[in-house]
Order: sequence, then structure tokens, then C-alpha cells
Amino acid sequence: MMSKGRLGQFVLLRSPLPRAGRPPQRSFTTGANAANTSRCGNRIAAAAISLSGLVYAMTSHKPAKFDARSLAELDERTKREQGIDENSPMRLRMEQFIREQQKAIVFELEKLDGKSFREDTWTREMGGGGVSCVLQEGNVFEKAGVNISVVYGTLPKPAIAKMRVNHKNLVDADEVDFYALGLSMVLHPQNPMAPTVHLNYRYFETMLPDGSSQAWWFGGGSDLTPSYLFDEDAVHFHRTLKEACDKHNKEYYPRFKKWCDEYFRNTHRGESRGVGGIFFDDLDESVADADNTFAFIQDCLRSFLPSYLPIVQRRKDMPFTAKEKEWQQVRRGRYVEFNLVHDRGTAFGLNVPGSRVESILMSLPLTASWRYMYDPEPRSREQRLVEVLKDPREWV
Amino acid sequence: MMSKGRLGQFVLLRSPLPRAGRPPQRSFTTGANAANTSRCGNRIAAAAISLSGLVYAMTSHKPAKFDARSLAELDERTKREQGIDENSPMRLRMEQFIREQQKAIVFELEKLDGKSFREDTWTREMGGGGVSCVLQEGNVFEKAGVNISVVYGTLPKPAIAKMRVNHKNLVDADEVDFYALGLSMVLHPQNPMAPTVHLNYRYFETMLPDGSSQAWWFGGGSDLTPSYLFDEDAVHFHRTLKEACDKHNKEYYPRFKKWCDEYFRNTHRGESRGVGGIFFDDLDESVADADNTFAFIQDCLRSFLPSYLPIVQRRKDMPFTAKEKEWQQVRRGRYVEFNLVHDRGTAFGLNVPGSRVESILMSLPLTASWRYMYDPEPRSREQRLVEVLKDPREWV
Repeated sequence: MMSKGRLGQFVLLRSPLPRAGRPPQRSFTTGANAANTSRCGNRIAAAAISLSGLVYAMTSHKPAKFDARSLAELDERTKREQGIDENSPMRLRMEQFIREQQKAIVFELEKLDGKSFREDTWTREMGGGGVSCVLQEGNVFEKAGVNISVVYGTLPKPAIAKMRVNHKNLVDADEVDFYALGLSMVLHPQNPMAPTVHLNYRYFETMLPDGSSQAWWFGGGSDLTPSYLFDEDAVHFHRTLKEACDKHNKEYYPRFKKWCDEYFRNTHRGESRGVGGIFFDDLDESVADADNTFAFIQDCLRSFLPSYLPIVQRRKDMPFTAKEKEWQQVRRGRYVEFNLVHDRGTAFGLNVPGSRVESILMSLPLTASWRYMYDPEPRSREQRLVEVLKDPREWV
Repeated sequence: MMSKGRLGQFVLLRSPLPRAGRPPQRSFTTGANAANTSRCGNRIAAAAISLSGLVYAMTSHKPAKFDARSLAELDERTKREQGIDENSPMRLRMEQFIREQQKAIVFELEKLDGKSFREDTWTREMGGGGVSCVLQEGNVFEKAGVNISVVYGTLPKPAIAKMRVNHKNLVDADEVDFYALGLSMVLHPQNPMAPTVHLNYRYFETMLPDGSSQAWWFGGGSDLTPSYLFDEDAVHFHRTLKEACDKHNKEYYPRFKKWCDEYFRNTHRGESRGVGGIFFDDLDESVADADNTFAFIQDCLRSFLPSYLPIVQRRKDMPFTAKEKEWQQVRRGRYVEFNLVHDRGTAFGLNVPGSRVESILMSLPLTASWRYMYDPEPRSREQRLVEVLKDPREWV
């Protein structure tokens, strides 16, 4: 795949991160288009990393001083001329991985549903781009979206200050160029007995003004939202995630399970969005090195199909009543409430002028309902779900 | 209705506002229940004044130092023993007026729909309460809510600071007791040719620590949200509002029409929620005296039925296709987006622990839909609506 000569030609230009300790050796000049593509960077970022606190960071934007575009071009050239292997910069390895995973997941979901996804690909002038795959009104899924995006952009000082709260390794500068990418997925099945599932994994990296890499971290998670609770489904989902976590660090699952319960909560209703899963936003060098963390993220993402497919397979053809469909629609209303009221990434993304709204709101169900004072019957299945949502359980 | 003796008994205890210039003469002791009812005050306030920037103010709450409860009790006694007339405190006159209007509007809507509203009445321990009237799955309306609420509560210092930005007459103190009330209404018709309408009028008053009244203002407005645009409907709606405004101040309509266009905007979509109407949040003594402003508010609220009923009457039985119903559902999704993402009162209310969520979210449609990349056909009626929403028009 790579000749030694070619490698030599670019080795000093590659990001030294996540392999620590290499001195910064690259420098870039400001591209002519940096100013008017900066806004574009935000746009995609909002979609790409919709669950990350990061997106808060990108409110006000000045033209990029440092040329993130140059890095994008370099990365494109690296991919084209050398391909990606375990020596490539982490951002390229992660990108390759989520592209493969998007394809694998879409393939399996199409096989299950029988209907094809619509695929929209876009590129960004400044570098990066995305692929949105959406299936609507399928046989199994009412709406399913599997989205990836890659962003090269610039963070202004106030954004950096906010991010430094959770990411101490981020440099305290006036402006920092960054790279972000992620895979986001939400699947809303037709059958009210089959749960909605959400997944997001992302990677973030910042660069110093001279172009050398600076800080990095991984974030993400996956959570399950049933309208009708089958304990065995919640147990299976959590157990699969716990197995992926335990292979890497026994502390991961309990910590990320708790984080998930706390984050995906409709606080105004006093209930969780669903039965949880895992969520985290801070896996950096203070936790484990980049290679090990990437291996963990890979296991998490690869565990998605085994965590969810068996559940939807056994629920998709179950009989249900009109009343049960109605309850599903009310629960979908709660899903919308969480995503539009509480989810930091969604809310922020929608407030950024020029957001790619269709990618951000791909997460919303095809249909939802709000019924005034719609309280479940005492001792009903609906009531039991609400009780569990009010007080999250340990499933494994 | 009132004997002179009785009036003499209470005259010094009544709020000197909105009749300016009287010295503060009341004083109240701290009630035993002030601490645990303070949170309750917030709860209703969030519903009562769901559109006001005021609600932002009530994030952190300490036990009330001054006894707003005493004022609530005094007001109850005044209403019971003396009744309300033009000499009564403005808060009682406004309360009486919106209660009458709620009844009148519900009466007319029931006559039109043929189905009855459900009526929920609640009272608050600290004083005040509300009445929510909701009609669901009617013949004309898919969902209709007409809500009033009355709140006695306490604003902490940070809240006061925020409110002082728009209300310079508000005292700069550590804590201010307040009184707020309002009527809120949202009507979502079944027929996609009939527009959704929203209305909210509210009154706000603060008290000094010695119990005397301090600042006051009125706010509110009304706006129309069609899925299919009939120009004559927009013209009729705006003309009726303009006539109500023009009777009081020729500058009101242009100013409040613009404010409405700016406020009810889904900025992330680059489009307005609907074809607008009027909106304002700052009618205080710097604009006109309280009696004249109250007269204006009365004219606005009384203009509601003539502004909307003729429209819904001529649209409610129009034929429509499944595709047109689908478009209505997509537009309802946009309505949900505005209310959950941008509306300050709704978002704040939902973030206050213990909010009366059912009163706040009464505004959401029974059903809504999100379809990926659902762009209207060129030169279609749907497309024309979107064009008008992108670039608000002058209708009268």
C-alpha cells in the first residue's frame, strides 16, 4: 500500500498525535478561502458531533487564522497516495473505521428491513464532508438514519474556555484549529414493541497554530428507548455493552452507564428518555493512550449490531393494538422533547446560522403525538415503563 | 357592590399601583409556608407567562423573605368582600377580565366545534392558581387549549437583573415579590386549510419589601400559522389586530407586527413560524398609563374571536387530500421545533424542576411529523407558503 519513499515524503507532515512526544514540525499558510468556509465548518460540526459539549464552543466565528484547509488537503492526499494503516494519524484511522461501520450497519439494516436507504453525500469547501443514510417508511423502520461527518474548523477563545472545563489537555489559546468526526444513528421501528435505539461515536483533535496536533479525545455511547419494556431486551442490550467495556476497563461500564442515565433525562418530566446504555465524552490521554482508546471505541461500535439486531428481530412482527401504537406515539413525543429541549448538541446546532438542519433532525421520529394529561392506567405495562424511567435500574 | 366603610377598611392595604404616586403603606410578615411554596410559585409562573422573558428570571429560588402569600390572601378577601370595579388594583381587574374572556372564548369554540372542553382548575398554596381548558380530537379542532393562571411569587437578584434590561422601572433589589397572570391559547384545527392560532396576554407587577407595589407591565400578542396560505385570511387577521391597535396608538401595530415577525422565527430554518400578528413585552408607564394600557389589552383580547372565527369557519369544511394532511403534519413539526427550541418561556418552564408540564405543553399539536428532506414542489402552494415564511410580508 505504501512505498518507503512516499512515506518519507510525508512523514514529517503527518499529525504527531495521538502518538505523543513528537515535536511540532508542520506549518501551513492561510488559504484564500479560509474566511468564507469557516462558517461551513460549524455547519457540519453541529451534525457530526451532535451529542458533544464541543458544539457549544462554536458560537462566534472568525476567519481561520491557521489553515485547517491545508490539513484537510494533506489528509486527502495521504489517503489517496498512501492509504491508511496503523501508523496513520488517528483521525484518518477513525474516519476509515466509521466509514466501514456505516456501510456494515446500513447493509444489515437493509437486509432486515427489505427497503433501501437513501444516501446523501456532501463535501465541504474547507475540507471534510459527510454521508447521511436515511430510510423512511420501511417495513421494519418508520425512520432510520445513519450519518457520518468529518469537519476541519476553528474554535474561538470563548469556545476553548468552555471545552477546557472537561478537557484540561486543551491548550489555552486565542484560536485553535480542530478536527472532528463522528457516526450518529437513530432507528425508530414501526412496531411499538420494538425499541428505538440511538448511537453516536466521535473523535476530536485540536492543532496548535503551527499545525502540530495538540489535544484529542473520544466520546460517544448508545442507548435504548422502548415504548413497551421487555426486561430481557434491556438486559441483553446492557450486557452486550458491558462486555465491550469490560474487555478494556472494568470501571468503564458502571461509570458510562451512570453518565448515560444522567444525560438522557427529560428532567422536566422527571423521567429518563429510555432504559439507557452507555455515554461518555472525555476519553483522553488521562484515561488511556489513543491506540487503546481507539480499540475500545471499535469494540463499542462493533457491538452495536449484536446489541440491537436480536431485539428488533424478535419484536418487529409482534401483534399490537391501535392503543399500543398511540402510546408509542406519545413516547415519541417525549423523544422529541429530549432532543429539542435538552440535547446540547441538537439545540446548539439548530441555533448556529446555516446549520445542515436535515442532518441534525434526522434523529426525530417520522411521527409523534402530544396528548393532554395522558396518564397510563395503574398497574398497566405503560405504567410499569414510566416507573422504570423515573428510577433507572441496573440491568446487569 | 362596595360600601364606603368597607372600602375605607382596605383602601390603604390595596396596591397603590398602577395609580402612581401613592406612598408604600402596607407591611407583611413572613408566612410559615413561604419556603416550601416558593418553588410552587415558579411552577405556575412558567405556565402562566410562557412567552415572557420574565420566566428566565426564576432559575434559583430561595424561600420568600417577604410574604407574597399575604398579598394573595388580601386579594382573595378583596374579591370576596368588595368585588372588583374600576378602583380595584389592576391585577384584580386584569384577572377578572381574563377569566371572563376565557369563558367567552371557550363558549364560542365549543359552539363551533360541537365538542366540550375539559376544564382543570387548580389552586396554589401560596396564592393564585389556574384554569386549563383543553379540547382534544374535536370536530373542528384536533387540539385546543385555553389556559389562564395567576401567580404570587418571589424573584431572586439574578432574575431581577435580567428583567431590568427590558424593564428599567423594576427596582434593583436582592429580592422582589411579584404577581403575574395571563391567558394563553393555542388552537390546532383538524383541516389543513384552517390555520393554527396562538394568543397570550399577561400582566406583571412587582412589590417592594414593605409590600407596596413597585413596577408593572403588560405583554402579549397573537399570531397565525397556516399550513396552506390564503392571503385573505392573513389580511383579515392582521387588519383586525391593526384596528385594535390603531384605536390606542398608531405606532403600536407596525412596531408589534415587526416584533412578532422577529420573535416567532425558526432561525435554524430561516423561516417564520407563521404569517405573524402582533407581539410585545414592554407596555409600562413609559408608554402609557395603566388604565389606557389595560384598555388596549382589552381591545386586543376582545379582537381575538373576530380575528380568527371567520377564518376557521370558512376553512374547516374545505376538501383536502392525504398529501395536504401530510404537509400540515410537517408544518406542525416546525411548530413543535419553535416551541421547544426557541420559545423562551417554554424552554425555561420545562427546565424548572417541578413545572406543571401539561399546562406548558398544551401548546403542542396532537400530532406532528418529521420527514427527511421534505421539500415542496416548485411553484406549488406549499412552496409559496415557505417563500412567505422566509420573507415576512406586510398584510395591511
